[in-house]
Amino acid sequence: MSVTAPLGFRAAGVDAGIKRGDDRDLALVVNDGPSRAAAGVFTRNRVKAAPVLWSAQVVSGGRVGAVVLNSGGANACTGPLGFQDTHATAEKVAEVLGDSAAEVAVCSTGLIGERLPMDALLAGVDVAAAQLSRDGGLAAADAIRTTDTVSKIAFRRGEGYMVGGMAKGAGMLAPALATMLCVLTTDAEIDSEDLDRVLRAATAVTFDRLDSDGCMSTNDTVLLLASGASGVRPDLADFEKVVTAVCADLARQLLVDAEGASKAIAIEVVGAESVEDAVTVGRAVSRSNLLKCAIHGEDPNWGRVVSAVGTTDAAFDPDRLNVAINGIWICRGGAAGDDRSKVDLRPRDVTITIDLSAGPHSATVHTTDLTAAYVHENSAYSS
Amino acid sequence: MSVTAPLGFRAAGVDAGIKRGDDRDLALVVNDGPSRAAAGVFTRNRVKAAPVLWSAQVVSGGRVGAVVLNSGGANACTGPLGFQDTHATAEKVAEVLGDSAAEVAVCSTGLIGERLPMDALLAGVDVAAAQLSRDGGLAAADAIRTTDTVSKIAFRRGEGYMVGGMAKGAGMLAPALATMLCVLTTDAEIDSEDLDRVLRAATAVTFDRLDSDGCMSTNDTVLLLASGASGVRPDLADFEKVVTAVCADLARQLLVDAEGASKAIAIEVVGAESVEDAVTVGRAVSRSNLLKCAIHGEDPNWGRVVSAVGTTDAAFDPDRLNVAINGIWICRGGAAGDDRSKVDLRPRDVTITIDLSAGPHSATVHTTDLTAAYVHENSAYSS
Repeated sequence: MSVTAPLGFRAAGVDAGIKRGDDRDLALVVNDGPSRAAAGVFTRNRVKAAPVLWSAQVVSGGRVGAVVLNSGGANACTGPLGFQDTHATAEKVAEVLGDSAAEVAVCSTGLIGERLPMDALLAGVDVAAAQLSRDGGLAAADAIRTTDTVSKIAFRRGEGYMVGGMAKGAGMLAPALATMLCVLTTDAEIDSEDLDRVLRAATAVTFDRLDSDGCMSTNDTVLLLASGASGVRPDLADFEKVVTAVCADLARQLLVDAEGASKAIAIEVVGAESVEDAVTVGRAVSRSNLLKCAIHGEDPNWGRVVSAVGTTDAAFDPDRLNVAINGIWICRGGAAGDDRSKVDLRPRDVTITIDLSAGPHSATVHTTDLTAAYVHENSAYSS
Repeated sequence: MSVTAPLGFRAAGVDAGIKRGDDRDLALVVNDGPSRAAAGVFTRNRVKAAPVLWSAQVVSGGRVGAVVLNSGGANACTGPLGFQDTHATAEKVAEVLGDSAAEVAVCSTGLIGERLPMDALLAGVDVAAAQLSRDGGLAAADAIRTTDTVSKIAFRRGEGYMVGGMAKGAGMLAPALATMLCVLTTDAEIDSEDLDRVLRAATAVTFDRLDSDGCMSTNDTVLLLASGASGVRPDLADFEKVVTAVCADLARQLLVDAEGASKAIAIEVVGAESVEDAVTVGRAVSRSNLLKCAIHGEDPNWGRVVSAVGTTDAAFDPDRLNVAINGIWICRGGAAGDDRSKVDLRPRDVTITIDLSAGPHSATVHTTDLTAAYVHENSAYSS
């Protein structure tokens, strides 16, 4: 289903020869309308890949007719020539579709610092355009994989409309092991300002709260395209719920597939003075290599949780901190609580609950453990 | 030589039975004067161990007659009873030495969240006091080891005076794999205000620029004690140089002994608008797990350097960034530069030079690579 679940979208995924081997590496998603309203959120890294610079400009116009995505090269840190490559890619798509390049978004993922093989890529656009179909969502999701072991797709039904999506990568919106790319589609009728508002709200509580290794890519992009083909103008609050559900589903898939991870860790911060404080604490804890190693070793080391909390400026009193791991409150009032031997850390899913005893707010940040496999995957080859 | 290199100090290190096995685990350092001026810097973690809270108070008085240190337990997150344990330890030392507890500093390192075995510890103080000697510096340095594979000691001669020191741990002043504890001694004649100024300046450019894994301990402590026994009142600028040299020597030893590390990485940031910017960039790069894995794999992945730089708010233009690894400028003007195959990453020491092209300032931050051995050491047991 993926991006072609909603009416008005066609997609394709092909092997253009950008990556070595026979894997698909080029995806095309086309919005057949009648509307082509769109919104996007991009990496906050100040070093932005050429396709991010290009697509941010396209999206600022509020309209996207097509998205072309490639794996096998990030086109980041490639200078003015790299930007020309992105521009040429958009022009090629526009030419093949009889459209305007100004409404063609481009996404790339792969190694930083190398130019893309443009001959292969441009020839691949022809092949992809010829294969565009209402069934092409799965092939497109497959084509954007890099170290992903599976394709990530999701969809949800709203009241008379549909939201679909595909994603690749592992990590937070500002990740991670690999770039995160995500294209969301809907056949709801909705203007680009509302799309933008909904997308920002949805990503803020999903992709933005994934933090697998604290690293931030140069290429992260999440696009939301509306065809209006259902003719249904949704209730905005409902629409936000549906888009958020699709984002949460994809975010969960990214987390579970994070490179080398053996545990999916939810860091649930409660009793915070503000949501910002809760997120700050969750993120600090999610970035503690020591804690991530302990969870990998199935050691309920609450001292490493507390010492990560202590590095933040969130409102809390060290003597009123409570920490539970998988439901056992092993730290109470900043000191040892229930018997740590009661904590069962064998399941893949681990929940660490941190009660700041400072207010009514909460937030959950998701991360993974730190494993020798992560080190191996990220030291044994360039990515 | 260690802390007993300067005149006026005695030390001892004994097996008090705090740690399992026959290793030494209790150290005592005594300042026989005539002066007992002192200064200290402590962890910035808001969750502070009992001995940190105690010693900060002692040091605020400007005088320290003795320092008692234990491995085998951090006495952190132990509540009011843990603080009473620290107090009782200081009282015991004071009693044995015929001194005041208000001038006895206490340092602890080991697992967080567990009470110390006070019977063993207090009995150990008697044994240590009986063994105090001018030759005890090595035994003291040995007794504060946790996962340290070697004792860390250093000393330097000034004009008519000496500065010595011992340390344990691996990481920055706000570390790390384990707590960092450091006791520096001098027989120079110098008041506590000047000691404080010198110690802050010296640690700011040494221990503060070590960042092995971005984690911050609850127990980090650096103390500087002056006996005045040489009768020499040093030139302050010279004294700062000597103290900085001792700190730099110890910091280097911590780095080389960092848990599981196979590379010592110097991140040299040049062309910065300010020293703060240079440190910010160096620290961000030193905390990139992806880069640390790449260096472990001997992959000169400058894209991971640049994308870590891009997460900071330092002044720089992405198109003017230059990056060298071991002297080869593989990124010039934000894009690929010299041939990356020229970079030799086989030596243990790796230098990454980042030219921000934004000003005249520079700073170097030291870190290590991220290895499967690090993961193993930090997942296989509680620490």
